[in-house]
Amino acid sequence: MYVEGKFKEYLDDLASNKAAPGGGSAAAAAGALGVSLLSMVANFTVGKEKYKDVEPEMEKILSSSEKLRAELQKLIDQDIVAYKEVSTAYKMPRESEEQKKAKSDAIQAALKTAMSVPLAICRNLFEAVNLCQPLLEKGNVNLISDVGVAAELIACAFASALLNVEINLAGIKDTKLVNDIRQELYPQERDLQAISQKVINQTKEKI
Amino acid sequence: MYVEGKFKEYLDDLASNKAAPGGGSAAAAAGALGVSLLSMVANFTVGKEKYKDVEPEMEKILSSSEKLRAELQKLIDQDIVAYKEVSTAYKMPRESEEQKKAKSDAIQAALKTAMSVPLAICRNLFEAVNLCQPLLEKGNVNLISDVGVAAELIACAFASALLNVEINLAGIKDTKLVNDIRQELYPQERDLQAISQKVINQTKEKI
Repeated sequence: MYVEGKFKEYLDDLASNKAAPGGGSAAAAAGALGVSLLSMVANFTVGKEKYKDVEPEMEKILSSSEKLRAELQKLIDQDIVAYKEVSTAYKMPRESEEQKKAKSDAIQAALKTAMSVPLAICRNLFEAVNLCQPLLEKGNVNLISDVGVAAELIACAFASALLNVEINLAGIKDTKLVNDIRQELYPQERDLQAISQKVINQTKEKI
Repeated sequence: MYVEGKFKEYLDDLASNKAAPGGGSAAAAAGALGVSLLSMVANFTVGKEKYKDVEPEMEKILSSSEKLRAELQKLIDQDIVAYKEVSTAYKMPRESEEQKKAKSDAIQAALKTAMSVPLAICRNLFEAVNLCQPLLEKGNVNLISDVGVAAELIACAFASALLNVEINLAGIKDTKLVNDIRQELYPQERDLQAISQKVINQTKEKI
């Protein structure tokens, strides 16, 4: 697992011509960076006399952000596994009619699995973005710029994951599934970008 | 050095209430992720018969992106060192007039060092963003979404680093320096956001 290995090794392999990791995994990594910063701000708020009144809320936020971070960390590696399944399916023989059918089925199944990873990244980040505003308003004021950076990272990780959802949807023939996924994600993207932009603007005002 | 340690350890410490790493280091990490993807696209283009005509250009891009990646990887750790210098300066005694002067001077020097790290992140990313367009137009078409993700990551890493420049500028008394830095970075930000947005839009059209 890359997340248990050297940070530099992950970056080296990302930059290399190895089949994976790629953009989907990098989106999960960027999301994990952003969500880590949410945890950091909460961690610097709990246990401080000055922020005693908001301590229960901050502990709840911390519990959510750490759960989301654990999910995103898993997705860094899951994207690589899913990508390999797609590569394997595309390498199947297609000489006989039977082989053609088996290959096509395997590709469709693999694309759905591959799409499910950036989809999960998006879903986790949509939960995460809602933690920014309370941290900005009630968290430790010394870490104001970190909330802004978290919002930047969450927004770009979502957009990046969405590009990876789309690249897989482009090959999926189940039009109902394709429509369902788009109807879930595009309203989320609009909301998420609006929330993160508001947080970023407020951060700039407070600096 | 974090970049030589476990990826998960970096994320754990980023999320914790340790003094560092924080948002500046995370900005360098996000930038390194983005620039790694540029290298990946170039690496999947060189040596391929189909892309023989653009091979010299791709090799030049790869050489640039790998240089920038090495710089950004260093900055992941340099931001932590610089932040510690600021913390140390703020803890200096200020009882006598001499101590007050020494502390103030130490804080000013430390803030300038701390500001220089996100400034270097911005400068490296401003170079990196110019590699996106040729990779999108001439690089391996199978990696189109990765160029889009790279542009997303570079743009958000620049904006994140800029927040960290500003948080340090807020404490720096040398108004000429403050103005010079802003006059360098804000036009760069406008250009960089315009270039990355164009690349992202073109990526979406091509998917």
